Amino acid sequence: MYFLWLSQLCRGLSRPLGSTTQPIWGSVSRSLVLSSQRRIPEFSSFVARTNTCGELRSSHLGQESAASVKKILCEAPVESVVQVSGTVISRPPGQENPKMPTGEIEIKVKTAKLLNPCKKLPFEIKDFVKKTETLRLQYRYLDLRSFQMQYNLRLRSQMVMKMREYLCNLHGCGYRNPKLFKRTQGYGAKEFLVPSREPGKFYSLPQSPQQFKQLLMVGGLDRYFQVARCYRDEGSKPDRQPEFTQIDIEMSFVDQSGIRSLIEGLLQYSWPNDKDPLLVPFPSMTFAEALATYGTDKPDTRFGMKITDISDKFRNTEIRFLQDALSKPQGTIKAMCVPEGAKYLKRRDIESIQKFAADHFNQEVLPVFLKTNRNWNSPVAKFIMEEQRLELTRLMEIQEEDVILLTAGEHKKACSLLGKLRLECADLLEMRGMVLRDTSLFSFLWIVDFPLFLPKEENPRELESTHHPFTAPHPSDIHLLCSEPEKVRSQHYDLVLNGSEIGGGSIRIHDAELQRYILATLLKEDVKLLSHLLQALEYGAPPHGGIALGLDRLICLVTGAPSIRDVIAFPKSFRGHDLMSRAPDSVPPEELKPYHIQVSWPTDSEAEKS
Amino acid sequence: MYFLWLSQLCRGLSRPLGSTTQPIWGSVSRSLVLSSQRRIPEFSSFVARTNTCGELRSSHLGQESAASVKKILCEAPVESVVQVSGTVISRPPGQENPKMPTGEIEIKVKTAKLLNPCKKLPFEIKDFVKKTETLRLQYRYLDLRSFQMQYNLRLRSQMVMKMREYLCNLHGCGYRNPKLFKRTQGYGAKEFLVPSREPGKFYSLPQSPQQFKQLLMVGGLDRYFQVARCYRDEGSKPDRQPEFTQIDIEMSFVDQSGIRSLIEGLLQYSWPNDKDPLLVPFPSMTFAEALATYGTDKPDTRFGMKITDISDKFRNTEIRFLQDALSKPQGTIKAMCVPEGAKYLKRRDIESIQKFAADHFNQEVLPVFLKTNRNWNSPVAKFIMEEQRLELTRLMEIQEEDVILLTAGEHKKACSLLGKLRLECADLLEMRGMVLRDTSLFSFLWIVDFPLFLPKEENPRELESTHHPFTAPHPSDIHLLCSEPEKVRSQHYDLVLNGSEIGGGSIRIHDAELQRYILATLLKEDVKLLSHLLQALEYGAPPHGGIALGLDRLICLVTGAPSIRDVIAFPKSFRGHDLMSRAPDSVPPEELKPYHIQVSWPTDSEAEKS
Repeated sequence: MYFLWLSQLCRGLSRPLGSTTQPIWGSVSRSLVLSSQRRIPEFSSFVARTNTCGELRSSHLGQESAASVKKILCEAPVESVVQVSGTVISRPPGQENPKMPTGEIEIKVKTAKLLNPCKKLPFEIKDFVKKTETLRLQYRYLDLRSFQMQYNLRLRSQMVMKMREYLCNLHGCGYRNPKLFKRTQGYGAKEFLVPSREPGKFYSLPQSPQQFKQLLMVGGLDRYFQVARCYRDEGSKPDRQPEFTQIDIEMSFVDQSGIRSLIEGLLQYSWPNDKDPLLVPFPSMTFAEALATYGTDKPDTRFGMKITDISDKFRNTEIRFLQDALSKPQGTIKAMCVPEGAKYLKRRDIESIQKFAADHFNQEVLPVFLKTNRNWNSPVAKFIMEEQRLELTRLMEIQEEDVILLTAGEHKKACSLLGKLRLECADLLEMRGMVLRDTSLFSFLWIVDFPLFLPKEENPRELESTHHPFTAPHPSDIHLLCSEPEKVRSQHYDLVLNGSEIGGGSIRIHDAELQRYILATLLKEDVKLLSHLLQALEYGAPPHGGIALGLDRLICLVTGAPSIRDVIAFPKSFRGHDLMSRAPDSVPPEELKPYHIQVSWPTDSEAEKS
Repeated sequence: MYFLWLSQLCRGLSRPLGSTTQPIWGSVSRSLVLSSQRRIPEFSSFVARTNTCGELRSSHLGQESAASVKKILCEAPVESVVQVSGTVISRPPGQENPKMPTGEIEIKVKTAKLLNPCKKLPFEIKDFVKKTETLRLQYRYLDLRSFQMQYNLRLRSQMVMKMREYLCNLHGCGYRNPKLFKRTQGYGAKEFLVPSREPGKFYSLPQSPQQFKQLLMVGGLDRYFQVARCYRDEGSKPDRQPEFTQIDIEMSFVDQSGIRSLIEGLLQYSWPNDKDPLLVPFPSMTFAEALATYGTDKPDTRFGMKITDISDKFRNTEIRFLQDALSKPQGTIKAMCVPEGAKYLKRRDIESIQKFAADHFNQEVLPVFLKTNRNWNSPVAKFIMEEQRLELTRLMEIQEEDVILLTAGEHKKACSLLGKLRLECADLLEMRGMVLRDTSLFSFLWIVDFPLFLPKEENPRELESTHHPFTAPHPSDIHLLCSEPEKVRSQHYDLVLNGSEIGGGSIRIHDAELQRYILATLLKEDVKLLSHLLQALEYGAPPHGGIALGLDRLICLVTGAPSIRDVIAFPKSFRGHDLMSRAPDSVPPEELKPYHIQVSWPTDSEAEKS
C-alpha cells in the first residue's frame, strides 16, 4: 500500500514520481540515513503504508497486487493525498531515468483512493519556482514540502541527534533548564518579559541558560548539555530570529583545551557523511593576530589577502597622508594585496571602495595597480622608491596584475577598514568570475585571548565585559586586574566557520570574591540581581567552563542555505512575525486583567518617531 | 588526579568517600550506565581528573602517585572542592565496607590542593536529613548534590536519551517547533502572554505544540517528535509546574493501534534496566467500562475492589433508599467489596466515608460488615434476603471479614463516588498495615472510546470538546454527528499508569469541512483564530494522529519521587516562584516602555478578593 501526494500523476504513471513530496521525503531520508552509517529508520512502521514511493527500487519489481482506476488519479488535483495499491513494474524501454533512485520503475496501479483533495495551490511546489519569502512563510506548510526544506530539516535533526549521542552516550552530559526566569544583568533591554498573575511581577525568557548551567556545576552535576531554546528581543534585525537554538555545554574541572577538544570531537562525530570529514584539531589564532591580519575577530580563512603592516618601509616617505599618519602616536600604514585586482576591479569599484572608507571610517585608501612589477600605476607611484617597491613585492608576494590597497591611521581602525575591504573585494572578484573561496570548504578557526574588558562606547573611561561578566581572566594576567584591567586577557574562546562566529564560551569565574570584585568594583554593576549566583560560588563551586554553539547558523552554513529561516520549520519573519498564524496578535483589554497589565498606546508623535 | 567535594575527609581517609557528592555522582552514573547496557560515558574525558573517587575500585590498587598533606584536608570545611593525587590502597582489615562499590579501597594522599572552600552549609547534604522544600529550593544548587536528586536527574536524562534513539534512529522522527506563538482557541486564560515591541501586540507561550505538529504533517514531514517544553499558567496548583515537559509525537497515515504500538515500544525501549522489563501490549479498556468498574477514567489496576451493579438483585428490595433510587430514571444500585474491611476498617473510618459521600456527592453509603457469610452485620441486614446474599457473595466473590459498601443513584454519580471511596479505602487499608498495591508494579492501561463532546458545566445544553476540537470522531459514530452528537465517541486515547494519566492523544480531523462543522456549528467557536489550520487542511492534509506523554509525571512515577519537583533540576515552587533567583520579579516602569505596557495595580478591595 502506498500513500503519496499526487503530483502530475494524472499525466500518466510513467512520469518520475520523484517530484512528489512523499517520494522525495522517502528518498531524502534514505540517502541521508544510509550515508550517516546508522540503522536505517523505518518510515512505514506503525502505519498501513508498505512503502513511500521514493523507497521503491527495481528490487521491488513484480511485488504482488492488482490493477486500474485511472479516473480518480486523473481527476484528483495536484498535491492531493491518495492511497494506491499496485504492482511495481519496469518503465517502458527508453523511459528509465538513471538520475533518479526511482528511475527504473513505475507502479501499475490496482486500486486508488482519494484521501484528501488539494485546492488550487498559491504556488507550485518546486525548488526552481521562485516565490517571495512572505508567500513561503504564509503557506509554510506547503513550502515545507519542497525538496530543499525537507533536506535541510532532516539534516538538522540528524546532526542534532548525533550530537546528543556524542555528548550523552559517549561523554555523560545531560539535563534541561527552566525557561521562565528572572531578568538578567545588563541584557534586560533585549529580553522578552512574561507578566505573571502577581501585580507588577514579571518572568523573563532567558537569552541563554548561562546562570542555570553554572548553578548545575555548583550542584555537582559535573557535565551538562542541552539543545537550548533561547530568546532575544531584537526587533527587526535581518537574519536574526527572536527565538533561536543553541547547543549549550558546561563542564566542571575543565580548561580551554578540554572544551576545544570536546567541540572538535562533537563536530567531527556529527558531521554529515555526504561532506568531507573534518580535520581536527582546528587551528587557533589570538584575537590580536586576527585583528592585525584579517581586520576582524571572525576571519574567513578560506582565502588570503592578508593585511600587512608596512609602517617601517615608509618611515621617510614623501606621500603626504602617510607622513601625517606616521607622525601621530600609534600611527601605522597598512596594505592589502588584491590578487589580479588590476584585471578584475574596475575604476568605479575602487571609487566605491574609497567612498566606503571615507563614509564609514573617515579614512583615505590609496590603490596601486600593478601592470607589471616594473610599472606601478598610481597617483603616488612616483613617490614609491624602487627599493620600497622590491620590499613590498617580497613582503606581500605581489604578482603582476595585482592591486595594492594602502591605508594609514590608528592600528585597530586601519585594520578594521582593510578587514571590511577584504570581504568587499572578495565579493567583487567573485562577481567578476574569479574563483576565490571554495564553497565546499569548511574552514573552522578558534579565536582566543580576547581582552576581558572593553571601554564603554558612551563613556570610554568606564569598562564593560567584552563577553559576559562571568568570564575568567587569563591566569597569566591576573596580576594586572587591579592595576591595568584593560590589559587583562580573558579565557574566552570563539569558534569561527568561514567568517561567521558559530560559537563562543569561556572558563568561568568560580571564586566568589573575584566575581564580586569584577561585578561591583570594575563593572560598577548592581550585584543584588546576581546575589544567588555569588552565594552559590561560596558553597564549594568547582572550577568550570563551557560553550554554546549557534545551531541555526551552523546548519545554515552546512546546508549552504541563504538564510537561517531556511533551516527552521516555522521561523518568524525578519520583523518577528509569524505570517501563517499572524502572531503577535492583539489581546482584548479584559483578557489582560489577570496579568495586571494594560497597553500604553504611543501618542501620534511617538508613533511617527518609531 | 582526583577532584572531589570534601565531606568528612578530615576524619581520616579510611572513612567511606561514598558520601561525597563527586564519588556518589561517579557511582550513580556507573551503576545506571552499566545497567542500561550502553557504552559507558567517559566522565573524565577532556578534564585533568583521572578518576572521580566513586569510580575507584580495588582494581585500581597501587596505581602510581605519591604521599601526605593532611593539614589542608583537615582544615578545609565540609563540601569544599579539593584536588588530590595519591595512591589507591586497600582499607585496613576490618574497615572494608562491602556495601559500597568503593568499600574495599582508600586513597593514600600524596598532594592535596584546596580549589574552592565551602562556607557553612544551610543544611547537611544527606538524604536522611529532613529539610523544608522551601529551603531545598532556595539552595537548589546544594540540594542537587544529594544522592536522590543526582539519581533522579540522571535517570531522567538517560530515559529521554533512549526515547530519542528509539524515535529518531529507529523510526525516523524529528524536528522542533517555535515557542512564541499566537493565542490559541479556548485555552486563552491559561496561557502566558509575551508583550512584543508593537503596541498592543502579544505573543503567547503555547500550552502544547498541537497546531504546529499538525501543520508539520500537512507539510509532509510525515513523522514528528520533540521533547517539548510547554507552558500553563495555572497559578498555584500543587504538583503542577508553570512549565512542564512532554514527549510530543505526531505521525501521518497512522491509526490508533499504530500510535499505541509506537508508545509501547518506546517505553519498553527506554525503560530503566534496574526495573522489571515491561510487558506489551498494554491492556486497554473503554471509557464506559473504566467508569462502570473503577468509577474513574484513570483506574489504578494494581488492585481489585471493582464496582458491581447489583440493581437487578434489588428490584424488589424493602430497603427504602434503594427503592427510591431504582424508582427514578437511570436509577442504579452499586456495590463495592473492601477485602478484610471488617478486620481493618474502624467504625470512624466508615463514618468519615459516609460523611465524604454526603458532603461531596450528596449520596448515602451503606456499609455491610461480614463477620461470617451467614452473619451480615448491617442496619439493613434483615432486609437482605438469603437468596440475595448468596447472589452477591457469588457475584462479588465476597469473603469473610470483608465489608461491602452499597450506594444508589444515577449511574455516573454512583460510580464516581465508589471510585473515590475505592482509593480512600485502599489508603486506609495500607495505613492499617494491609499490603494492597505492589509498589514495584507498573500497571499501564489504555483508555479508549471517550465521548467526543461533553455538556458544558455552565450550560448543559451546549457542547464542549472532551479533549480538544481537533480530535477525530469514531468512524462508526460519524452518522450520529448531526443527529445526536453527544453520543459520538472520539478517537482519543489516554495512557494511564498506576492510576495517573501520563499521556493522551488522538487521531486528528484531516477534513477541513468536518473540522469547520465541529468548530463553528457544534462548538460555536470563532473559527477566525484557527483559519490558518483550517486553510492548511484544504491543501492535501494527510490523515494523521499523535500523542503526548507527560515526562515529569512519568519520571516521577518511575523514580517513586514524592513530587514532580524532585525530578526537575530547577522547579518553581507550587506558587510558581523561583525561590533561588526570586523570579518573578518587579520591573521598573521605564523598562516596561519598550513593550508598551504598564502595570495596572489592583485597588485594595480587589487585592483583598484575590
